Amino acid sequence: MARDNSVLIGKKTVMNYVLACISLFHAGENEVFVKARCRAISRAVNVVEVTRRRFMPDLKIHEIGISTDQLASFQEGGALSNVITIEITLEVNQKNTTLKGSTATTPLIQGGQETE
Amino acid sequence: MARDNSVLIGKKTVMNYVLACISLFHAGENEVFVKARCRAISRAVNVVEVTRRRFMPDLKIHEIGISTDQLASFQEGGALSNVITIEITLEVNQKNTTLKGSTATTPLIQGGQETE
Repeated sequence: MARDNSVLIGKKTVMNYVLACISLFHAGENEVFVKARCRAISRAVNVVEVTRRRFMPDLKIHEIGISTDQLASFQEGGALSNVITIEITLEVNQKNTTLKGSTATTPLIQGGQETE
Repeated sequence: MARDNSVLIGKKTVMNYVLACISLFHAGENEVFVKARCRAISRAVNVVEVTRRRFMPDLKIHEIGISTDQLASFQEGGALSNVITIEITLEVNQKNTTLKGSTATTPLIQGGQETE
């Protein structure tokens, strides 16, 4: 279902997800999808803004989509309920990527995946 | 600051703001701006989805923008704090729509509610 370069926003603190986004870009992704449902939507917007303003100034918001999913509720015997979702597509031009406060040779991810 | 065709999302229930959006379109607006800050962002998305799915199927989301405002806090002696915002631009194609203030009655909503 979820693509490899997706960050699903849940109940953790904002910086957890910010780090996840930065790690994906450092692993060589050009696009990252930030997805959230219901109340986590505000946090998704926060994650994007913190990532962009504090760490990756050349990050672009390519697209923002909102929609409604219908989910079957376990508690109510499978009754369908409507759940709002947001998907924010971030993209960065890898050639010019800079990360504020880091040296160029430092991999962010433990295990040292190579960026291209 | 706020344009006349803006709906600012606060702490009221979703249906309050849905009604506000529908009223603006009924008054002849082609575009409505739904704006929210911080935790109200999720509610803004909910307002848009409810308006579109339940009341105005031909409503289009023209644009979604997110940004960060810097606001001076009264409590902390004017210290600046970052506040995330969303602005969702809704538009409806009103081919048969009359201009604002005219007396012709045109049903804007499928299902046949009439404008005044």
